[in-house]
Amino acid sequence: MTTFRDDGAAALEWAASYLERVRDLPVLSQVAPGAIRAALPARAPEAPEPFAAVLRDLDDVLMPGLTHWQSPRYFAYFASTASEPGILAELLSAALNQVGILWRASPALQELEEVALAWLADLLGLPEGWHGHIEDTASTGLVTALAAARAASPGKRVVVCSEHTHSSTAKAARLLELELRPVRGNAGHGMRLDEVDLSGACALVATIGTTSSAAIDPVPELAAMCADAGVWLHVDAAYAGSAAVCPELRPLFAGWEQADSLGVNPHKWLLTPMDCSALWSRRPDDLRNAFSLVPEYLRVSEDVASLSEYGVPLGRRFRALKLWAVLRCYGREGLQAVIREHVRLAGLFEQWVRDEPRWEVCAPRHFSLVCFRRDGSDEENEALLERINATGLVFLSHTRLDGRLVLRLAIGNAGTTEDDVRLAWEVLRREAL
Amino acid sequence: MTTFRDDGAAALEWAASYLERVRDLPVLSQVAPGAIRAALPARAPEAPEPFAAVLRDLDDVLMPGLTHWQSPRYFAYFASTASEPGILAELLSAALNQVGILWRASPALQELEEVALAWLADLLGLPEGWHGHIEDTASTGLVTALAAARAASPGKRVVVCSEHTHSSTAKAARLLELELRPVRGNAGHGMRLDEVDLSGACALVATIGTTSSAAIDPVPELAAMCADAGVWLHVDAAYAGSAAVCPELRPLFAGWEQADSLGVNPHKWLLTPMDCSALWSRRPDDLRNAFSLVPEYLRVSEDVASLSEYGVPLGRRFRALKLWAVLRCYGREGLQAVIREHVRLAGLFEQWVRDEPRWEVCAPRHFSLVCFRRDGSDEENEALLERINATGLVFLSHTRLDGRLVLRLAIGNAGTTEDDVRLAWEVLRREAL
Repeated sequence: MTTFRDDGAAALEWAASYLERVRDLPVLSQVAPGAIRAALPARAPEAPEPFAAVLRDLDDVLMPGLTHWQSPRYFAYFASTASEPGILAELLSAALNQVGILWRASPALQELEEVALAWLADLLGLPEGWHGHIEDTASTGLVTALAAARAASPGKRVVVCSEHTHSSTAKAARLLELELRPVRGNAGHGMRLDEVDLSGACALVATIGTTSSAAIDPVPELAAMCADAGVWLHVDAAYAGSAAVCPELRPLFAGWEQADSLGVNPHKWLLTPMDCSALWSRRPDDLRNAFSLVPEYLRVSEDVASLSEYGVPLGRRFRALKLWAVLRCYGREGLQAVIREHVRLAGLFEQWVRDEPRWEVCAPRHFSLVCFRRDGSDEENEALLERINATGLVFLSHTRLDGRLVLRLAIGNAGTTEDDVRLAWEVLRREAL
Repeated sequence: MTTFRDDGAAALEWAASYLERVRDLPVLSQVAPGAIRAALPARAPEAPEPFAAVLRDLDDVLMPGLTHWQSPRYFAYFASTASEPGILAELLSAALNQVGILWRASPALQELEEVALAWLADLLGLPEGWHGHIEDTASTGLVTALAAARAASPGKRVVVCSEHTHSSTAKAARLLELELRPVRGNAGHGMRLDEVDLSGACALVATIGTTSSAAIDPVPELAAMCADAGVWLHVDAAYAGSAAVCPELRPLFAGWEQADSLGVNPHKWLLTPMDCSALWSRRPDDLRNAFSLVPEYLRVSEDVASLSEYGVPLGRRFRALKLWAVLRCYGREGLQAVIREHVRLAGLFEQWVRDEPRWEVCAPRHFSLVCFRRDGSDEENEALLERINATGLVFLSHTRLDGRLVLRLAIGNAGTTEDDVRLAWEVLRREAL
């Protein structure tokens, strides 16, 4: 254990020092494809190397190939944060190495997962009694939900969604051989109700906070339509769902309490390290019906359903520990403070864009994502994006809305300050000239 | 960062101390269902709590609910090890919080994953040039492989496997709406070649090291049949595959180099913390064909396929870092030493069983798993198993072979010594009286 303590102290110091200096590192990796691969040996060593060699090569070889998701100046896709309690809980999870293939293999893993999801449901104002478990990503959660929906409605093979629905819905539909029926978006990029056709549908995927522009589908109306037609309603709130911890933002989530299944990613906007995607359902028997399968070597005397009966993987990591640590070490108030500050900063940025000639806000802003562009062609905006990302000072991404290329600034890192957002704006204006 | 350094030092000390005392903890958790849940508060706290409170409750509340997979006296299912470099690499991964949704989001994640899988392929004697990536579990890997096989053979909907194939094949077939065609096993629990019927089949799943008894399907013959019939051959070596690091065990893997896809779990027998399941394929274009989907918001200028195009999840954790750390800190020699010792210990235990009246070895032993039983009824053997597991001294599991309940002793923890195996045998004999 001497080695573990010494190596561990070095790894911990590396992590602490990384978090201290990450703001000043080039946010988007500037390496060329293949450069990292080329810098690594072709084969594993014959003899053991010290852990110090791993740390050394992390600095010398891998560092240039990292895009710094932990940077407060990361504004691309959806910005996120692996918070300190979350990081340390991952250390503990790895040391415990629980493998939750069934209840007795780790009662604490399974029951803490259930409790942590119940805590989170309560924080978000969701109904009591929903069954919750953790998936790696919302993509897998969608496969899980749609497989249950397919099994619950034999012969119905259509999934209705918005043209702005995340591509994971199309991916899941392809895997499950379901037909995708995308509905056009309205001016605010929410699903057009007059175009929703539920005939032959087993499921409808509604989104609160789309990936492109954080748009909100009209969930109360969609829920009523789904209830009438007997169609499974999955609500994808992977990014935005965490914001429901703030009561003042709850109105944006109207109707999600009527979902048959609901996904929220604590690894996006709730301070939890990758990966931790929450999936709740008020129809857990349908999930179990789609996935449960208990071979002899997993049969046990106790009468407890295992969480592996509700989804694809048999083995599960002790992910609940980090979520539990985050919820405790922030508390409801701490989580609210982070979300509110991010929404405030996004509002500031939005106003700067509005106030500036030749710049335009391109979508309603509900949360911490601002969609905007400079006047000019798509090519000019894309070139502008590449220029600002090449500075290494900030990292933004893009999407396409209403046929035009649009820039996205997403705030979601706990360390992001008003100065960081102002820097992004300054770099944008400077590079636009 | 003071808090992070202090809390981190406490977490590290907790982990070090846990690893020191884990041998003496009751291996199988002895709590009743619901006990852990009942000991936890109903809601998250309002105000932040210190990280020390998490560590305190890990001891006071969760500890009785842990089944100690890290115990050298864990012999159930497939024993495993989260080694020290693997644990510390998980700390680093969490601190870096890379989210590999596409190449530019973390070139180092993607290229290290490719390199680590190439290193591992080389260590195992696999052909050069296969495409490799990491899945969470072999269950997900199977879904990935079978989805590719299904897409590659339109109209063919049958998956051939052995009656001893892991239940994840049945689960994947259900998800993909494929028909399972199980083939009976021979005396050694390998697939009976004379019963293999590939008509209408898109895939055959062959196993090297089944879950029940670590049996080996006749892969060279199956590979030839698959090649003739144009059927995708997936080889599941989730447990046993790591043993191919030892040249003297390579003959047991004959034919796997002809697989279309191959799964090996470093989180089982290769010292890597949960979760890390390697999936290689020599037909990566078929995987990509089944899963690739690049929406506008993920379009980039560089011409690099993302690993997310080869499977279900979009986001991926920096799992490669722990595998890389393990391969380096053990080296080929260190990995071989661990595997060889486990195989030796299993051989010893097997001999003790053979030499003892009223005990019987129930399956050929190729690796580190021994299947055995005491004479008497299934009920008596199951009751014996429950008694020895209730002692907390060791943890074994069971399966069913040739219609009889059989006990399984699986060696796979790096800390397991001859004394630990002897203790298991003594407890078994004592409780059998």
